[in-house]
Amino acid sequence: MPQQLTLYLHKISPYSHRIELALAEANIKYKAHQVDLFNKPKWFAATVNPLGKVPAITYGGPDVDPAEPSSLSFKLAESNVILQFVAELYPESGLLPKDPVERAKVLFFMDAVDRHFDKPGNDWMYGRTESYEVYLKGVEMIQGLLSESGEFAVGDHYTIADATIGPLLSRLKITCGTDIGVFSVGQGTKLGEELKAPKYAKFMKYVQAMLERPSLRDTNDEAYLAEIWKTLIPKRRD
Amino acid sequence: MPQQLTLYLHKISPYSHRIELALAEANIKYKAHQVDLFNKPKWFAATVNPLGKVPAITYGGPDVDPAEPSSLSFKLAESNVILQFVAELYPESGLLPKDPVERAKVLFFMDAVDRHFDKPGNDWMYGRTESYEVYLKGVEMIQGLLSESGEFAVGDHYTIADATIGPLLSRLKITCGTDIGVFSVGQGTKLGEELKAPKYAKFMKYVQAMLERPSLRDTNDEAYLAEIWKTLIPKRRD
Ligand SMILES: N[C@@H](CCC(=O)N[C@@H](CS)C(=O)NCC(=O)O)C(=O)O
Ligand SMILES: N[C@@H](CCC(=O)N[C@@H](CS)C(=O)NCC(=O)O)C(=O)O
Repeated sequence: MPQQLTLYLHKISPYSHRIELALAEANIKYKAHQVDLFNKPKWFAATVNPLGKVPAITYGGPDVDPAEPSSLSFKLAESNVILQFVAELYPESGLLPKDPVERAKVLFFMDAVDRHFDKPGNDWMYGRTESYEVYLKGVEMIQGLLSESGEFAVGDHYTIADATIGPLLSRLKITCGTDIGVFSVGQGTKLGEELKAPKYAKFMKYVQAMLERPSLRDTNDEAYLAEIWKTLIPKRRD
Repeated sequence: MPQQLTLYLHKISPYSHRIELALAEANIKYKAHQVDLFNKPKWFAATVNPLGKVPAITYGGPDVDPAEPSSLSFKLAESNVILQFVAELYPESGLLPKDPVERAKVLFFMDAVDRHFDKPGNDWMYGRTESYEVYLKGVEMIQGLLSESGEFAVGDHYTIADATIGPLLSRLKITCGTDIGVFSVGQGTKLGEELKAPKYAKFMKYVQAMLERPSLRDTNDEAYLAEIWKTLIPKRRD
């Protein structure tokens, strides 16, 4: 019988959003506790995650106030590790298939998202690379991995592979729609236009399917993200 | 009943070495095929791993010559994903514990190794950062994660967490012993001396235990690695 589960998160964090999605999709009961990343409480790094980052979870131990974590609970960080932990706590959720080959496809997809999609996307958005070329290569790679129907990342239902990429898709949409990022004016909009080409149709259909799922739709505050990005990413290349 | 397993690898690659270790520890039968990374055969990227990197595996399908992979086998890349796949094919190997909390500890350890140990180690060795300070912080973090006895990464027997870090430990020893790397002369030797301090005793005891295991000892060609590093990493900072 699974025990108490507390998720430490923040609205701007795509990585904590991943966990929210998986928990919502599997209808899992948990406590959510927002950690103020702009004024981090000392107890968080001291008692939950030494790296001071969200997401982090506590599992088991007594049912306490999240702001006063028990030393008796299990603490875990790193979004993809947490996703797998949650999926394995609830094997009947289908968040991770039972067959080793299908499981490996899910885990490979998650690895590819971080390595070939999230990283180049951030590099571009934060001005560490000039062009979105590598990011677009990542889109192609991810598209190539999608299940045949293109409805889900792997197989024919929702897995933690979908939860890993979901928050990044809603953020991609914001970048293309608002043009916010440390890149030359118009680059975000231009990427949005490029993605309308037929060669990205399968990927864009998948993006649409994910954005329409209640799990993402109900937790997706695009206006808030756009506002806060404007203050966090103020400097342009030109 | 597990099917045919073929591992594509290269002696210089710590990532393919990870898979060799896990397979040896679990006494799993497989075919090994060396891929010449300096003159890569075209069929490798075309039929096994589009990224052209080792390790990669094929699983299942007909029992063919590794140089002529069947389109019917499952192909998988990324060392940590392969490790988990192998562990799940052979659940009785103990390579991955059954308890979700223990499993999560293994997976968190593996993530930490790549993020906080392998990456800063490479950054320093290839001259992307000047000092080994971040690498040494990674050593501290890994030490803090080791099981109480310090004999294994997690729990009281060999898991894929040990397989992930093993090849990096033998390479750390070579770096400290030979001073080969894109850093100022003497920095490798100096790191070796620093690691002798009492504060790293638990980590060093673990390193020793890993290096002495037959799986690593019998596959560890330090002289070959040192020779090839000399030709691959010729330029010093001064
Ligand atoms: N690799 C981590 C990344 C977590 C992360 O970077 N979280 C950010 C928010 S998006 C954070 O908590 N930053 C606060 C800080 O570093 O102080 C994961 O996937 O969980
Ligand atoms: N993240 C990958 C790294 C694999 C990797 O970088 N392999 C190198 C050898 S150490 C390789 O095959 N390089 C050949 C190439 O990139 O052409 C893993 O863990 O498997």
